[in-house]
Amino acid sequence: MKDRLSILGEDWKKVEELIASSLASDIKLLDDLNASLLENSGKKLRPMLSLLMAKACGKVTPDSIKFAAASELLHNATLLHDDVADQSATRRGKPTVFSLLGGTASVLVGDFWLVRAMETILSAENERDEAIRLFSKTLNNLAEGEMLQLGKAESADTTEADYLRIIYNKTATLFESACITAAVSAGADEVLRQAAGDYAVNLGLAFQIKDDILDYNGSDIGKPVGVDIREHKITMPLLGAFVNAGAEKEAEVRARVAALDAGDADGAAEIIEFARENGGIEYAEKRLEDFRQLAVDALSPLAESEAKQCLIELAAYAAGRNK
Amino acid sequence: MKDRLSILGEDWKKVEELIASSLASDIKLLDDLNASLLENSGKKLRPMLSLLMAKACGKVTPDSIKFAAASELLHNATLLHDDVADQSATRRGKPTVFSLLGGTASVLVGDFWLVRAMETILSAENERDEAIRLFSKTLNNLAEGEMLQLGKAESADTTEADYLRIIYNKTATLFESACITAAVSAGADEVLRQAAGDYAVNLGLAFQIKDDILDYNGSDIGKPVGVDIREHKITMPLLGAFVNAGAEKEAEVRARVAALDAGDADGAAEIIEFARENGGIEYAEKRLEDFRQLAVDALSPLAESEAKQCLIELAAYAAGRNK
Repeated sequence: MKDRLSILGEDWKKVEELIASSLASDIKLLDDLNASLLENSGKKLRPMLSLLMAKACGKVTPDSIKFAAASELLHNATLLHDDVADQSATRRGKPTVFSLLGGTASVLVGDFWLVRAMETILSAENERDEAIRLFSKTLNNLAEGEMLQLGKAESADTTEADYLRIIYNKTATLFESACITAAVSAGADEVLRQAAGDYAVNLGLAFQIKDDILDYNGSDIGKPVGVDIREHKITMPLLGAFVNAGAEKEAEVRARVAALDAGDADGAAEIIEFARENGGIEYAEKRLEDFRQLAVDALSPLAESEAKQCLIELAAYAAGRNK
Repeated sequence: MKDRLSILGEDWKKVEELIASSLASDIKLLDDLNASLLENSGKKLRPMLSLLMAKACGKVTPDSIKFAAASELLHNATLLHDDVADQSATRRGKPTVFSLLGGTASVLVGDFWLVRAMETILSAENERDEAIRLFSKTLNNLAEGEMLQLGKAESADTTEADYLRIIYNKTATLFESACITAAVSAGADEVLRQAAGDYAVNLGLAFQIKDDILDYNGSDIGKPVGVDIREHKITMPLLGAFVNAGAEKEAEVRARVAALDAGDADGAAEIIEFARENGGIEYAEKRLEDFRQLAVDALSPLAESEAKQCLIELAAYAAGRNK
């Protein structure tokens, strides 16, 4: 990641500074929480993507900085809400706001980040309406996606089309608004905006499929396996195994998923084993590779540049990572 | 309330229709939840206030309908988030989304209502920037207010100034944005906008002080007493008792509040008794009456009208209600 950041240089620093200053509050408890969240804020994939896209579309403008910062603020807002929803005790190895101060704080700090994201977008000089429309759509998609997933989890009847809609709504949609607003901020024409969006959506789908494969295969950072299936979330590896195993077996396994108790580690392990034995991982890796390739192909209207090369490498990284 | 609605006539119906149509989703689980939330959505004080203010400022325009609907969408979004924070099983006698489907659903349905509120504001024809600025500020205030309250609850050192800031942030701020955007939508000049804001802030403070008195006195609908003090929330009745009882007694009671266990009903009852015996209720009622009067006085720049009369009565209702 170091190289990508060195291409971005001062602009990256400006994004980090804007994220921090956007969160300023005279409420001490809130200010302290925000500082500790910023310290532990991970790799900042979305603003990195956003700045690289602006650069690849021609130039990083003051609005590019704002939209990039907003994408990270929005992402963290949704994580704070997810932590409440999932009752998560830790994130990236540190205690969550939820575990330190409870649900009230985590929901409301999330709302606070959300509002500051909106205000950051609204402070843009140009194309503010387009940016707010895109990010609003994303927030809408995130909420709808979780509700769709929740509804499907009850009946365990997720199809591949449902799954793709869910992961578009959960993950790809924020990549999409980050990249399109970046193109917009760079003054890109309609063709480049479309290219930026297509790249981002396909990258986001690949990224989430990889995440879902790691839930079957385990990761280098020791994330637990089988979390999804215990929540009755049917993802690409299991969908792939269904294709290979035939309709009768599929119906049987779906019924087992629907009846699975969240604490039933053995039951979850059996379903993971079924997916592995029936080529589910390979199927998912094939689909992942398809989306990675579509992401790279989508960039063809962009002129060659170092930033474009980084975007291509980012797609390879998203597909190849083991954490 | 019937009379106020008959003054608003068709416009009220338009607000209700816009609220419902703003929430449309093709995700069945979400659509079903929204329908049941709308059925149980209470007295809709904020959009009523908003439409009455627009009318009292001269006219109800298409934007008035939008801002009024947005105020109700925002209010319900915050209730959905509060239910998660407070782990509430029921609201207005019905099971909450939180109790039916858990924290994930309640946080995300809240986010969904929030986004649809934002989109409704953004669909306005005029003064969209001013409206989004006002409602964003409100969302910011709501989050900051809860965090301030949470911080103060730990140390039990809330002063009257802290308390007024908290209740402004928690309650009055949404009354304020609802009324100012209403004035804006009616084409009101700066003087009338200011009047609308002053009325709303004072009404909101009175409304919340009344709520806090009911937590000491009990209400006609059987809401439990002492909920606030068990959460270490020091409100106007206790602050009033401190003024009357002197510094030594105040320090002693504050220490007891700080040490109070959430399940300690007897300890809470003792503190409530202390507030009652030391004139805390009377003190709070006096402050409530001051704010009600300030609200009414603030309306003086508005021409006489049936709608203005309703706003005056609404202030009396907010101060006098027993539920």
